[in-house]
Amino acid sequence: MTSPESLDSFHAVIPAGGAGTRLWPLSRAARPKFLLDLDGSGRSLLQQTWDRLNDLIPAERIHVVTGAAHADAIREQLPELTGLLVEPSPRDSMPAIGLAAAVIGSIDPDAIIGSFAADHIIDDQVAFADAIGQAVAVARTGLVTTIGITPTGPSTAFGYIESGDQLTVEGGGSARAIAAFVEKPDAATAAAYVAGGHHSWNGGMFVTRTDVLLGHLARLQPALHTGLTTIAAAWTGEKRQAVLEATWPALTKIAIDHAIAEPVSLEGGMAVVPGAFTWDDVGDYAALQDVGAASSPETVWIDASGLAIAEDGTTIAVVGLHDVVVVRTPDALLVTTRDHAQRVKEVVAELKERGRTDLV
Amino acid sequence: MTSPESLDSFHAVIPAGGAGTRLWPLSRAARPKFLLDLDGSGRSLLQQTWDRLNDLIPAERIHVVTGAAHADAIREQLPELTGLLVEPSPRDSMPAIGLAAAVIGSIDPDAIIGSFAADHIIDDQVAFADAIGQAVAVARTGLVTTIGITPTGPSTAFGYIESGDQLTVEGGGSARAIAAFVEKPDAATAAAYVAGGHHSWNGGMFVTRTDVLLGHLARLQPALHTGLTTIAAAWTGEKRQAVLEATWPALTKIAIDHAIAEPVSLEGGMAVVPGAFTWDDVGDYAALQDVGAASSPETVWIDASGLAIAEDGTTIAVVGLHDVVVVRTPDALLVTTRDHAQRVKEVVAELKERGRTDLV
Repeated sequence: MTSPESLDSFHAVIPAGGAGTRLWPLSRAARPKFLLDLDGSGRSLLQQTWDRLNDLIPAERIHVVTGAAHADAIREQLPELTGLLVEPSPRDSMPAIGLAAAVIGSIDPDAIIGSFAADHIIDDQVAFADAIGQAVAVARTGLVTTIGITPTGPSTAFGYIESGDQLTVEGGGSARAIAAFVEKPDAATAAAYVAGGHHSWNGGMFVTRTDVLLGHLARLQPALHTGLTTIAAAWTGEKRQAVLEATWPALTKIAIDHAIAEPVSLEGGMAVVPGAFTWDDVGDYAALQDVGAASSPETVWIDASGLAIAEDGTTIAVVGLHDVVVVRTPDALLVTTRDHAQRVKEVVAELKERGRTDLV
Repeated sequence: MTSPESLDSFHAVIPAGGAGTRLWPLSRAARPKFLLDLDGSGRSLLQQTWDRLNDLIPAERIHVVTGAAHADAIREQLPELTGLLVEPSPRDSMPAIGLAAAVIGSIDPDAIIGSFAADHIIDDQVAFADAIGQAVAVARTGLVTTIGITPTGPSTAFGYIESGDQLTVEGGGSARAIAAFVEKPDAATAAAYVAGGHHSWNGGMFVTRTDVLLGHLARLQPALHTGLTTIAAAWTGEKRQAVLEATWPALTKIAIDHAIAEPVSLEGGMAVVPGAFTWDDVGDYAALQDVGAASSPETVWIDASGLAIAEDGTTIAVVGLHDVVVVRTPDALLVTTRDHAQRVKEVVAELKERGRTDLV
């Protein structure tokens, strides 16, 4: 178990972005996936992420990075949140997490940060806490550390982490060096990964000392590093917003995976600790069904099966279709199948093409 | 061509009943199929039936028989209608048509009536008028006459009329005796019927002298005949409603097909004239699509096809499903396929089972 002291200087960063277009029409640009209670738990995915972290650390050490469009909704969903960082425009995950690192590091030089997506689902809080404790212990040694989720099957929807040599870190449990990050595989490759036992799912959970992260950034993305430290230096002063708005738009738009994880892993600077909990990024309606989302109870199934959601409470009837996905909102309706769940984003693309910004 | 004089004593009777449960959720008990503009023509099926007949005979000779629940809606849709017969309860088609025959016959002893379902679609008014003209000429000789629709394919959704010997009637064109009425056939039988050339579709259009029809009724269904003539005798007096309500509930509930058409055809008392027009009873969503019902123009089809109707004007997106049927109303949603169109009635049965009378 994680002792409370071991997380003393640990801060959580939640980048809250991404539209979740494969969950249209539930998820919209103005009402993205992380703000939704997708699994019927009574808490949005963001609130569930908050709850998981706030169980380990106080609210003051949980930071959310988001766009201006969602700042008010997030404040409303997380009344205890004090560390909201509002991006003037989306620049992908590296500037978001890098800004948080620079700001947190300027206040607490010993800080270790962990990044956690706002829209993932995790079950088993004990295993999650245990993995965080191990990751923090390993990160303290100067390694950028990820939590590699133990696969429950040969998914082709996730990236994988290939683990290398065993590391010996006190409190770091079964940490290993990272041999490589690999992109979403095909089915045969995924099956081989799972059978081999050296691959885990990449859930985007990076735990690192702020000085280590900023050091890598200074070396690998110097312009981005300069921009972020410039903003952080002005963060507690009167010119914060002016500096932010002047500097932010020019920052390199890049994911932390490409900016840090991949190059640093090749240098031997990264570690992975196992996360033996149930995890899902709820990327599409097949995943949503798998995490337990239920059909509207009034649905009439005649020689039919699948997921049928009526957000407006109306009655859905399905006849003669199996593994169907039906999602009705007050202004739109999606009809597809589990097998086509990944292609729902094409609907959003088509609606944009038609200028129907009211529906995306 | 039909000469106007030949239709001098011709009255049309439109039994307007039936819920059209296979067209749920568009068609409801309170808003049945015949009141709906299903083909986007701007006129309901009942109004289209009216228009076809009013093109041939004056409004005063067009009679509609319906239940109390729909009387107001029908008066609203057909402002010129003077002959509305309101049934206290549904007793199937024979009492409905028999009552009209008795009432019309008591006013005009030479009357010939023709019955036309309120919810069928017919294209080609010239061919329709020609068939009516022939049927009236044949009916005048004392035969109960049907119009047999020339099949456009081996449908298994309709009953068939097997024609027998050629008849010689002036103005009766190519009328033949009826050898038999046959129920909806299987696919192989239907194909044989169409190939043989002796079978036509039974569209339920019966043309007969009122005295001939009532004579058959007196012989074959004497109790029903007595009840109907009792009501007709009181029709123009003050006691109409009292007699109707006292007599109607005890009338035999039976279709004209079983009460008259089948037994009289076996006695050689029936004839068929060919109807060389496009006809459909729009019995389900496959038929509705075939008669030209269009999907909502905003529908997004991604690797998909079929019929998608949003009665509430919202946008439907279908991904990866072909020959699908999607019908959205403000309070309900149906998702099925063309192949399962006939099974939609099972949804209505299930909703009734659940006590959801608000939805059926």
